[in-house]
Amino acid sequence: MTLTAISWDDTAGRDGRGAVRLIDQTLLPGTVVDRVTDTTDDLVEAIAVLAVRGAPALGVAGAMGVVVAMDEGAREGWDEARIQAAVDRVRNARPTAVNLAWGVDQVRPLMGHGRDAVLAAARQLAGEDEAANRELSRLGADWLLARIDRPRLRLLTHCNTGSLATSAWGTALGVIRELHARDRIELVYADETRPLLQGARLTAFELEQDGIPHVVQVDGAAASTILRGLVDFAVVGADRIAANGDAANKIGTLGVALACRDAEIPFMVAAPWSTVDLSMADGSGIEIEERSGDEITSLGGVQVAPEGSAGFNPAFDVTPARLVDAVATERGVAEPRSGQDLWSIAP
Amino acid sequence: MTLTAISWDDTAGRDGRGAVRLIDQTLLPGTVVDRVTDTTDDLVEAIAVLAVRGAPALGVAGAMGVVVAMDEGAREGWDEARIQAAVDRVRNARPTAVNLAWGVDQVRPLMGHGRDAVLAAARQLAGEDEAANRELSRLGADWLLARIDRPRLRLLTHCNTGSLATSAWGTALGVIRELHARDRIELVYADETRPLLQGARLTAFELEQDGIPHVVQVDGAAASTILRGLVDFAVVGADRIAANGDAANKIGTLGVALACRDAEIPFMVAAPWSTVDLSMADGSGIEIEERSGDEITSLGGVQVAPEGSAGFNPAFDVTPARLVDAVATERGVAEPRSGQDLWSIAP
Repeated sequence: MTLTAISWDDTAGRDGRGAVRLIDQTLLPGTVVDRVTDTTDDLVEAIAVLAVRGAPALGVAGAMGVVVAMDEGAREGWDEARIQAAVDRVRNARPTAVNLAWGVDQVRPLMGHGRDAVLAAARQLAGEDEAANRELSRLGADWLLARIDRPRLRLLTHCNTGSLATSAWGTALGVIRELHARDRIELVYADETRPLLQGARLTAFELEQDGIPHVVQVDGAAASTILRGLVDFAVVGADRIAANGDAANKIGTLGVALACRDAEIPFMVAAPWSTVDLSMADGSGIEIEERSGDEITSLGGVQVAPEGSAGFNPAFDVTPARLVDAVATERGVAEPRSGQDLWSIAP
Repeated sequence: MTLTAISWDDTAGRDGRGAVRLIDQTLLPGTVVDRVTDTTDDLVEAIAVLAVRGAPALGVAGAMGVVVAMDEGAREGWDEARIQAAVDRVRNARPTAVNLAWGVDQVRPLMGHGRDAVLAAARQLAGEDEAANRELSRLGADWLLARIDRPRLRLLTHCNTGSLATSAWGTALGVIRELHARDRIELVYADETRPLLQGARLTAFELEQDGIPHVVQVDGAAASTILRGLVDFAVVGADRIAANGDAANKIGTLGVALACRDAEIPFMVAAPWSTVDLSMADGSGIEIEERSGDEITSLGGVQVAPEGSAGFNPAFDVTPARLVDAVATERGVAEPRSGQDLWSIAP
């Protein structure tokens, strides 16, 4: 079973106008509950609390958010300026992933053609995301298998990049699924990915559902698992990739990349082309979302750190291109560490 | 206030024989409860669940454990072989920290002189540990201040190495306390230290009590905090240090060391000489304790990973000497990365 993180439901909203249907990822894996969202306030909140998350899925959320704003505006009698302001709020709900703004921008020019045109474009974007995921997974798997001489591969991944993070299939987890389909996976080490445990909760859930052998480890174990020679390569997703190959991804990714470099094993970033931001020459301009320190100092509502201790909670880090062996996209595989940047595979 | 992790209470045990008194560190910082232990079974359990932990404190626990076994043997009418077997169980309660076995071995030869002689030696060992901590803290602080030109220092530490991990004062946290006493601390980044959160629960608690400015971060943030230039050095403790400077410490330490090397800032290990194991030429022979995967897959009794997903839970990693700029001990500061190994400061 492949889970669908985000889709449009034609009848779930008020006045028969349809709504975004999300799997509420804050409750997984214990509880699988759909969250039906037909207001921009609720969609922005769902994005902020990570009920929907993952760069490609946020692209779809952005595109569908334009439809939500248009429907809400029609229902509530908003003028054009207010509708556009609502669209902007969706577009800016989180700063680091370029895909959210990209998704909005893909369909926004169609607003003059009516909500059905926008909705059709949003749905097409979701379909194209899945196709892109499958292609980049195929190219990423080819790249790895050409370089690692071992019947079945042991690998490490960080955060969640599967069908819960995308419209379907997955990016880094798509590469893993593709390798599994070719019977080339021995074991996946899934970093739990603190503070929100997307690895332990979501990646393990998807791997378990697909029957892919895996273990969950704390993020701090990644370096030693790699230096002990237990891993043949690491593959992660990205939230924004600069032209030179600098890649923003979930906090903890940079440490994985440093360990791969030290151990001289490939570190691959897998992401659809929509994650690439050629307007940024390098990663120095990428805004890093800093989330509430409470995500660290309390766990499941229970305070773990002393009341007087603050949490420092950058949600992403930027892995420099010099540590990135490969960026697998549906357009091809760039090799930033070898000086082959994203322009080399640009359209 | 400096907390005392472990001490001998002359009247707390059965038959007026005395007992080990521990702060139960599994309940901190929410609850401060003493655990009084006058059987080897209970002491071994307290060590296994990390009610008492930290390499130097385990040295004291080992030494006092010999007294517990002798008192229990007298109370229960054990023969000598059974008493020795109980001592061995304490000695082997955890495999990685050399200090536990060292503490037992320091006082075991005195068993023929009676339990009072053993107890006196155990108490002396605790006092010597505090003196060693204070001296290595002074030498470590001197070493750092000679190399970092900044009025107040920003630093990163991992796990807990304070008075809760030692008989008193601390090792890495001792260096931090010493720098704070000299008014040279700007900010401490304390890694939360999954899976058992000794950083968020214990280090933050001790820093808070001492009024040392600090924030708590997830372990995955360490690399980016360091590469972003937010930190001037890192200092950690150790559970066993081989002759060449390879150092076993809490899982996650190796990733800190890799980031420090990449950023070209000092990575210091602070530990009493009792942590140094000259019988090991390098770290390849250090046994790494693998703890239950449940510590990862469930949090506070709540399952976070899917039921079918196993946790991989090595409790320690080994940082190679090539990444260790300094090992601060009470005998002096070795510089393994520069080729100055532990023999260079051996007695």
